[in-house]
Amino acid sequence: MNFSKLTRYVPALEWGRKYNTDALSNDLIAAVIVTIMLVPQSLAYALLAGLPPEAGIYASIVPIIFYAIFGTSRALAVGPVAVVSLMTAAAVGQVAEAGTMGYAMAALTLALLSGVMLLLMGVFRLGFVANFLSHPVIAGFITASGILIAASQLGHILGVKTSGHTLPEMIESLVVGLTTMNWITAIIGIAATAFLFWVRKGLKPLLLSKGVPPRLADVLTKAGPVAAVVVTTLAVWLFGLENHGVKIVGDVPQSLPPLTMPDLSPSLVGQLFVPALLITVIGFVESISVAQTLAAKKRQRIDPDQELIGLGAANIGAAFTGGYPVTGGFARSVVNFDAGAETPAAGAFTAIGLAIAAVALTPLVYFLPKATLAATIIVAVLSLVDLSILKRSWGYSRPDFIAVAATILLTLLLGVETGVSAGVGLSVVLYLFKTSRPHIAEVGLVPNTQHFRNIKRHTVETHPSLLTIRIDESLYFANARFLEDYVYNRVQKDCELKNVVFMFSAVNEVDLSALESLEAINSRLKDMNIMLHLSEVKGPVMDRLKRSHLLHDLSGEVFLSQFDAMDKLTPKKATAAE
Amino acid sequence: MNFSKLTRYVPALEWGRKYNTDALSNDLIAAVIVTIMLVPQSLAYALLAGLPPEAGIYASIVPIIFYAIFGTSRALAVGPVAVVSLMTAAAVGQVAEAGTMGYAMAALTLALLSGVMLLLMGVFRLGFVANFLSHPVIAGFITASGILIAASQLGHILGVKTSGHTLPEMIESLVVGLTTMNWITAIIGIAATAFLFWVRKGLKPLLLSKGVPPRLADVLTKAGPVAAVVVTTLAVWLFGLENHGVKIVGDVPQSLPPLTMPDLSPSLVGQLFVPALLITVIGFVESISVAQTLAAKKRQRIDPDQELIGLGAANIGAAFTGGYPVTGGFARSVVNFDAGAETPAAGAFTAIGLAIAAVALTPLVYFLPKATLAATIIVAVLSLVDLSILKRSWGYSRPDFIAVAATILLTLLLGVETGVSAGVGLSVVLYLFKTSRPHIAEVGLVPNTQHFRNIKRHTVETHPSLLTIRIDESLYFANARFLEDYVYNRVQKDCELKNVVFMFSAVNEVDLSALESLEAINSRLKDMNIMLHLSEVKGPVMDRLKRSHLLHDLSGEVFLSQFDAMDKLTPKKATAAE
Repeated sequence: MNFSKLTRYVPALEWGRKYNTDALSNDLIAAVIVTIMLVPQSLAYALLAGLPPEAGIYASIVPIIFYAIFGTSRALAVGPVAVVSLMTAAAVGQVAEAGTMGYAMAALTLALLSGVMLLLMGVFRLGFVANFLSHPVIAGFITASGILIAASQLGHILGVKTSGHTLPEMIESLVVGLTTMNWITAIIGIAATAFLFWVRKGLKPLLLSKGVPPRLADVLTKAGPVAAVVVTTLAVWLFGLENHGVKIVGDVPQSLPPLTMPDLSPSLVGQLFVPALLITVIGFVESISVAQTLAAKKRQRIDPDQELIGLGAANIGAAFTGGYPVTGGFARSVVNFDAGAETPAAGAFTAIGLAIAAVALTPLVYFLPKATLAATIIVAVLSLVDLSILKRSWGYSRPDFIAVAATILLTLLLGVETGVSAGVGLSVVLYLFKTSRPHIAEVGLVPNTQHFRNIKRHTVETHPSLLTIRIDESLYFANARFLEDYVYNRVQKDCELKNVVFMFSAVNEVDLSALESLEAINSRLKDMNIMLHLSEVKGPVMDRLKRSHLLHDLSGEVFLSQFDAMDKLTPKKATAAE
Repeated sequence: MNFSKLTRYVPALEWGRKYNTDALSNDLIAAVIVTIMLVPQSLAYALLAGLPPEAGIYASIVPIIFYAIFGTSRALAVGPVAVVSLMTAAAVGQVAEAGTMGYAMAALTLALLSGVMLLLMGVFRLGFVANFLSHPVIAGFITASGILIAASQLGHILGVKTSGHTLPEMIESLVVGLTTMNWITAIIGIAATAFLFWVRKGLKPLLLSKGVPPRLADVLTKAGPVAAVVVTTLAVWLFGLENHGVKIVGDVPQSLPPLTMPDLSPSLVGQLFVPALLITVIGFVESISVAQTLAAKKRQRIDPDQELIGLGAANIGAAFTGGYPVTGGFARSVVNFDAGAETPAAGAFTAIGLAIAAVALTPLVYFLPKATLAATIIVAVLSLVDLSILKRSWGYSRPDFIAVAATILLTLLLGVETGVSAGVGLSVVLYLFKTSRPHIAEVGLVPNTQHFRNIKRHTVETHPSLLTIRIDESLYFANARFLEDYVYNRVQKDCELKNVVFMFSAVNEVDLSALESLEAINSRLKDMNIMLHLSEVKGPVMDRLKRSHLLHDLSGEVFLSQFDAMDKLTPKKATAAE
């Protein structure tokens, strides 16, 4: 393997050669900012995934380094993210009890499966399958996930034990548990949530109005979660609130990521296969859209297939170092980008920062209340909730609306896996349904041009002996019979008709079923003394038709343009464009 | 409900009013011929389905009458057919042991489920779903079923007990059982098969060369199976072969169809649901293609939704009268048609003929060897086997070939249900795959016309500042990103470019995902000082775009025709067509 081929698979070799001190200092600054942001976030997302807090930290160290070596995005920050943490909880919750050894093990297996799937998709260049997740379905899914995540954290906020993976289950367990609510936890949780909301909405304008420089105001605003963590931790420690029922993070091992071995028993792999596939696709789609958005701003290019390899390596790294499924996160990537990260080395420095935190800072979070972490999650995910997609899709296209509404409803009512699967399935079914009943227009010549348009929408010239039908869809098995029915019905009532032209300008494929239908139409029309012609057949379609008997058996001709067809088939008519 | 609405659902009221003695005599003659053909065939297909012989007779009586009342085809003969009998054996064999009471009961349930599904599809006008079964997949499935059916009958021919629903299973059980072969059965079976093949291929030319009138030669050829039945039955009776291990039909109750009640226990219904759906779709497709072929010959029309109701009624009839799933059969319908049947009344008369046979003739088939029935099945189904579809699809289109080959292979190796499901699934996936990577052509003006064609295939006029891209596919979620990538790659290398036109002549839909991609392309090109224009946008697509922001934000214009676009965007160029 020569060097240029190697750099295709290991982009780090490319940017590493050009690395200099300027880039180094920019990357270092970005790394410090991201590290400060990641420590509480990692702990919180681990809580959301039902894992011990250190899993979140571990999932942020080795995966970042592996992505830095194999990924193509300069700014993407890989690690635990909210939606994937929720999906992990849903998947692993089906095979093991939260808090057990088996649960953490299954999370490792999930990360490995997802990593291998990503890697294989990258190697076989299958990144395009993610396209089947339509924008509206993703938007609906992310919104519904945000609501589910926020709901799942309400228990931690109020000091109530809750359970369930769907909105009704969560609400029911919350209502049932309200009698056991812990008042001190609720005060901490609600206060932390209110504080973080205020930091997000009100602090920056206030600081600016007090004359604080914008850059500093920005940093102070971002340090909000850290402040909440520090204050509530101190409060618990000073007043011994952990003895009054306030749940705290507790002991977190003071260690670098351990070497772990995922459980690869066939039954577990079988149970986690489909969830892993969904996490893979959702994680990839989320990551690639963040990466492309940021790359576009600097006119850089992202290679989706190489991104798959980078994310695959990151997840495999997570599986063997005590983590759980990871992907590129939106919030942290934007912070990384804004902080001036120039190369993936910024990610590697972040990993070092987190490794230091894992070894040195973990004793400090012993008294950190879980309610504070829940508050940071709620405030973070509510920015994901955007119901405007419902309105936009309703106004633009009903099938899109149906897919979005079904995704949101089913995600909330039946859980993340059913929701996203139903959204994808429904999008495909609605598309197929639409193509199975294509729009077919009768067209005529627009005066003084050589252009043909729908007789119902435009004032056009036609001739009674000539029927021109423009078929607005590729012809394939699902609509072949529809075309036959349309033509027979249309032709039956028309005695003057001598020539039918199928204008193929919008026909991008003719499969074998449709070919048989065309042959049937041709011979049926021939029996009625009507000639069948084709016009504006595209190159790829014509290539294929030449391999069949249709062109030989065709009663009429194939015309390069519809204008030629009309010109030849209605000779007495003088058209203005000549 | 007024009369015309009633005749929509009960076509018998329509043709019944115009019925006369001419039609009566034609129908009676056809009924006699079909009855003679149906008696051995009904017994044989019941054997194939694993049911007692009388089930085949019963399934030919009430269903025919119900179809005559509700169906629209004048010639379709409804009853047990080979492929559906095989599918029944596969479905019912999964839930009960052949020969047991539960087996026959499950067959009734299957008929009822399929009948209700057909009826519902008819009422809700869902006949179009059958279109998703492409012609090549059906052809492949019928061919593979023919091979499976023939293989399943080899045991009866050789007097060996065989089992299994896939080709390897059948072959294995046949090879294992060969040691127990019954020589007398084998002689009868092989002789009957050879005789029937000769009747089919050699008898008619022979009779014609001996000066027999063609019409008589035809009838004598059709009577071949009856002759085989009579001769072998006599042989068993005269020589007492049933005592030497020759399996015979045995006691068949001498009775009209009994009133039966299908087992509707939820677990059974659950297990049979998917098989019933497959039988419904396959049965409907087989029936409708026969009906349409025959109707076209007499310029009659078939209403697919009413056909569903007719077939549904027939199957529900079968379920309550000791039958099993039925559909319109090809061979018997053609015989009915050729014999001059004018109205569905011919079917009703056939039912009377079979009812007489059920009461009067059943004792006569006591000594009929099962090997003879197996021989009639083998000779009948081998006409279904047509591997030429493989060659045709290979020559015409690779995706069609893949779907056919997979259908044939999987049907043979894994059984009918897996085979046909895989065929349908694969067709859809291959279609989606194709549309997800659309053909995109750069086009230019064909000299002396106003017509635009691919610059790679035609000699055309272009202008360096203008790039015209014709997108040969509807834009939807699966290919939205593909278009973005294509455009960015193409535009990047081109400094002279000032205008990009998307020629939308082949774009039949723009969904919300694609709309977002178009907005992204528009703003990205705007940043590069390139204007984006659209041309030849169709009515339905334009209607939808008007409901979005795209047209407002578009840096360029929307042109009625591509010629207008080129004319306006390259003003200095004098084109010949003006």
